[in-house]
Amino acid sequence: MEYAFRGAHQAGITTPAQDRLHFAAFDVTTDSRDELIALLTAWTAAADRMTRGLPAGEIGPTQGSINLPPDDTGEAIGLDAGGLTITFGFGPTLFRDDDGKDRFGLADRQPKALRTLPHFPADVLDPDKSYGDLCVQACADDPQVAVHAIRNLARIGFGTVAVRWSQLGFGRTSTTSTAQSTPRNLFGFKDGTANIKSQEKKDVEKHVWVAPGADAQADWLAGGSYLVARRINMHIEIWDRQSLGDQEDFIGRTKDTGAPLSGGTEFTEPDFDMPGSTGPVIAEDAHVRLVHPDFNNGARMLRRGYNFVDGSNPLGGLDAGLFFIAYVTDPDTHFIPIQNTMAKHDAMMEYLKVTGSALFAVPPGIGPGEYVGQSLFA
Amino acid sequence: MEYAFRGAHQAGITTPAQDRLHFAAFDVTTDSRDELIALLTAWTAAADRMTRGLPAGEIGPTQGSINLPPDDTGEAIGLDAGGLTITFGFGPTLFRDDDGKDRFGLADRQPKALRTLPHFPADVLDPDKSYGDLCVQACADDPQVAVHAIRNLARIGFGTVAVRWSQLGFGRTSTTSTAQSTPRNLFGFKDGTANIKSQEKKDVEKHVWVAPGADAQADWLAGGSYLVARRINMHIEIWDRQSLGDQEDFIGRTKDTGAPLSGGTEFTEPDFDMPGSTGPVIAEDAHVRLVHPDFNNGARMLRRGYNFVDGSNPLGGLDAGLFFIAYVTDPDTHFIPIQNTMAKHDAMMEYLKVTGSALFAVPPGIGPGEYVGQSLFA
Repeated sequence: MEYAFRGAHQAGITTPAQDRLHFAAFDVTTDSRDELIALLTAWTAAADRMTRGLPAGEIGPTQGSINLPPDDTGEAIGLDAGGLTITFGFGPTLFRDDDGKDRFGLADRQPKALRTLPHFPADVLDPDKSYGDLCVQACADDPQVAVHAIRNLARIGFGTVAVRWSQLGFGRTSTTSTAQSTPRNLFGFKDGTANIKSQEKKDVEKHVWVAPGADAQADWLAGGSYLVARRINMHIEIWDRQSLGDQEDFIGRTKDTGAPLSGGTEFTEPDFDMPGSTGPVIAEDAHVRLVHPDFNNGARMLRRGYNFVDGSNPLGGLDAGLFFIAYVTDPDTHFIPIQNTMAKHDAMMEYLKVTGSALFAVPPGIGPGEYVGQSLFA
Repeated sequence: MEYAFRGAHQAGITTPAQDRLHFAAFDVTTDSRDELIALLTAWTAAADRMTRGLPAGEIGPTQGSINLPPDDTGEAIGLDAGGLTITFGFGPTLFRDDDGKDRFGLADRQPKALRTLPHFPADVLDPDKSYGDLCVQACADDPQVAVHAIRNLARIGFGTVAVRWSQLGFGRTSTTSTAQSTPRNLFGFKDGTANIKSQEKKDVEKHVWVAPGADAQADWLAGGSYLVARRINMHIEIWDRQSLGDQEDFIGRTKDTGAPLSGGTEFTEPDFDMPGSTGPVIAEDAHVRLVHPDFNNGARMLRRGYNFVDGSNPLGGLDAGLFFIAYVTDPDTHFIPIQNTMAKHDAMMEYLKVTGSALFAVPPGIGPGEYVGQSLFA
């Protein structure tokens, strides 16, 4: 399976969600605008190649001189493109670093919504798993393909960027196409039922892409999006000791089919007014209610989250949870208010702790001969 | 795909290596022998079920009372057995803890070779990624299946065991069947070419299983094996800057086909005497030479390693490498001397740092109605 790297929008957003993720955030270690542009140019060429199943460089892992390092690291020899998509984003600190310095002459083009996300209740952020000047999302059906992509981009960036943090995800939790069935998160529930599907073209336009003219200061971002990344640790050991009924009440859906507690099937619209024995059948603090567009000014997100397990925690359990990724047209309308509501009222929050957080502006698609983000530097 | 859980030997050793790994080491938090036996009995029942694609418990994730916690966590609903194998091992501290205490009345049955591995050069061990009273290796073709297995065993063990460390592996690096092609490690080289294959029945008997009578104190281990686990960090960023020729010299094989530098194809026996321009074609410090049975009293290992990437390291690179697993009849003859030779002389060692280490005795297969390790407690 191959997906086109170039187009009106970057791949890896509305692309049917692949099974595996390697996500990396980078710090730019140079102050040179030219070096930054050279990096983006080199990354574009390598990403274009790797998404076609080719080595990262023109010489390849084994075809060059034995006296030189190969321009591909070789662990993907013999593997095909694996449905690889590589999606690039720019963090707020690319425009103005933590000291307010405009290293690359970009400050006057910073998108208005591209700021460090505010502190939310339940945020216990690890700065070593948060933020970043640049991000790269590699999704593929083979984890070795996704890892190979990030690893080679890091190799190419040696001396210009350093990996700030990186996250592997082993199981997608969202569908971005109506052709996909809904997978389960580590709470054991179907996740992403109400996600925007690429087939919902009007909603994709409205809720995912940045419209031309939406941001006078950053019209370069038109056709792009915002990427919200949140590393959400789940207290799975505590969750597992809750009764089935409580788990379903927290979510507002059945664990079995994913149908709303008001009845029907997975894709039946929840009836938030249906009365139960005490209050509505779908509780006031149920997750499905609080994040529903009806209670959030109609806002929808396109989510591409992945489950993760990163070893163990000091409590003798697994360091596990959901690496949440959402693409939205504007985090000020499509993420921050919803996250605030959720953090304050959602019954599920008792079982969550957010340990990583980042926001990136995702430039539009890359045309023939262009490098990623070219409209920002033009 | 389903593999039988019960048999003469535990599954997950000679089973054709699956693509994904979740490995966990546990500390036993009780001093009660009865509770330990109850845990192993409950683990056996759950593992037997999960390897057949069934939920961990008889009720299942959604079929029980809404007033009780489910006896399966649910994230594997709708997934099949996924070729799952679950393999159990006992660490030295199960027999005698770090204070020398015999908590479970097992000290006089401790296998003679089951000791904390000696310190090797290049070992920079993190105690939080090393050792353990018990281990569970879950291998499957779907990572969600492997994670589900470990997570449910940890859930069942709540109050009796705590996860000490856990490791995900995303790409196998070894073949244990002649029907499998050889995958690549993160140095970009084929790994496991010379591995013992399950079809080599004589070598499996000789090098993998503990023979009856081999250890008078621990005859309960006959038909079992020893599991060596080593978390080997690769300095991939430094490796990637070495020339192709140097990389091949370090390994002693070509990067392309995996053939020995003395010629032929991947499975051609290396000619260690073939002269090159300076010394033998396969250098004195080449990895393939130093670990070859010809230079190690004929010892072979059955390896089941996996690649890993666990986020980033403080140097701005990836925390990546090889989670080495080997099954051997006796670590004193089949691992420790080879590891010492390698650590002292292998050119590849400059690019490795061992951050985790553990040794476990793997009890024999589980007969009908038995629990894992029953011969130890009988």
